[in-house]
Amino acid sequence: MKFSPALMDLIEALRCLPGVGPKSAQRMTLHLLERDREGATALAEALQYAMARVDHCQRCRNFTELDICEICSDSRRDRHMICVVETPADVLAVEQSGSYRGLYFVLMGHLSPIDGIGPVEIGLDKFQQRVVEEGIEEVILATNPTVEGEATAYYLSDMLLPRGIKVSRIAHGVPLGGELEYVDGSTLAHAFSGRRKLEQ
Amino acid sequence: MKFSPALMDLIEALRCLPGVGPKSAQRMTLHLLERDREGATALAEALQYAMARVDHCQRCRNFTELDICEICSDSRRDRHMICVVETPADVLAVEQSGSYRGLYFVLMGHLSPIDGIGPVEIGLDKFQQRVVEEGIEEVILATNPTVEGEATAYYLSDMLLPRGIKVSRIAHGVPLGGELEYVDGSTLAHAFSGRRKLEQ
Ligand SMILES: [Zn+2]
Ligand SMILES: [Zn+2]
Repeated sequence: MKFSPALMDLIEALRCLPGVGPKSAQRMTLHLLERDREGATALAEALQYAMARVDHCQRCRNFTELDICEICSDSRRDRHMICVVETPADVLAVEQSGSYRGLYFVLMGHLSPIDGIGPVEIGLDKFQQRVVEEGIEEVILATNPTVEGEATAYYLSDMLLPRGIKVSRIAHGVPLGGELEYVDGSTLAHAFSGRRKLEQ
Repeated sequence: MKFSPALMDLIEALRCLPGVGPKSAQRMTLHLLERDREGATALAEALQYAMARVDHCQRCRNFTELDICEICSDSRRDRHMICVVETPADVLAVEQSGSYRGLYFVLMGHLSPIDGIGPVEIGLDKFQQRVVEEGIEEVILATNPTVEGEATAYYLSDMLLPRGIKVSRIAHGVPLGGELEYVDGSTLAHAFSGRRKLEQ
């Protein structure tokens, strides 16, 4: 005997969440049924809404339920500057550091030839088009300081420098091998102000 | 700037899950959007179905989407014996130990006068009625070996012994202060076979 089918289904379904094993899925299911049915119903609605509506911004590839996200359509931002990051969480981390007021481009990953992830998979064709069409003057490379992140930054600088675009790589403060998303705001602010310009 | 409203709502909604803080809610949201939209949609459906359909079994108070749960309506089980436990997870733990073939009564808690939880709140009026109407001969008290669990077991034995019902308390093997739900099957099997009969 196990729990009834509706409970078993919910326990199984909760395991799609990262870090949730069978025991915690069971504990979550009982908690929701016993103590927070309202929260569970709100969660179901938020999940359905997000999955149905959220897609990538047509300009920066960040997640949004709009065609063009709020940052890309914010006229108060510096529109000649693009910061390239790997993930939506990285955009949030940079925003929270308060050290940047330009636009973004979200790779949704990094170059990883061994996994079949080349320039097109991380949207670099679309990025190159943006740089040209929007008259971008400066690009800040804020990919993670990992092997793949560095390789991606190198590829990007190689693509941008011959076009006379000012390219910089955030540097000091982000611990090597670390992930941008987990760096505190002041460290990130430091990394932005201490960025070095890459030369051809 | 934060994430877009649909993402913020989902991050906030995920926090209804026990053990999920803001950082893991954010990680879960991005994971689902990037890698498992199908899983997220299935989770939304499982949540809605369970919250709309699952209620307490009219006989044993365990969670079920049926009026009478599968255990209560299983004719192969010993219908003269009831095991009293605190939670649905405890029913599962006892079932998995394979040491018991009778019926259950799930208190959905324990006596806790300080929190206003008395006999009626844990269904003991319904339990007493069942014992009489169904001609129950033996009751096994498998509440947790905590102060409240012991007090609840004592209250139950006090209620049952004067009616000439055989009452026992599971004993050996369950570590003091521990929770039944986390005890392994063989320890529980041992606790069942080593139960001691309570005398008036
Ligand atoms: Zn955008
Ligand atoms: Zn039942």
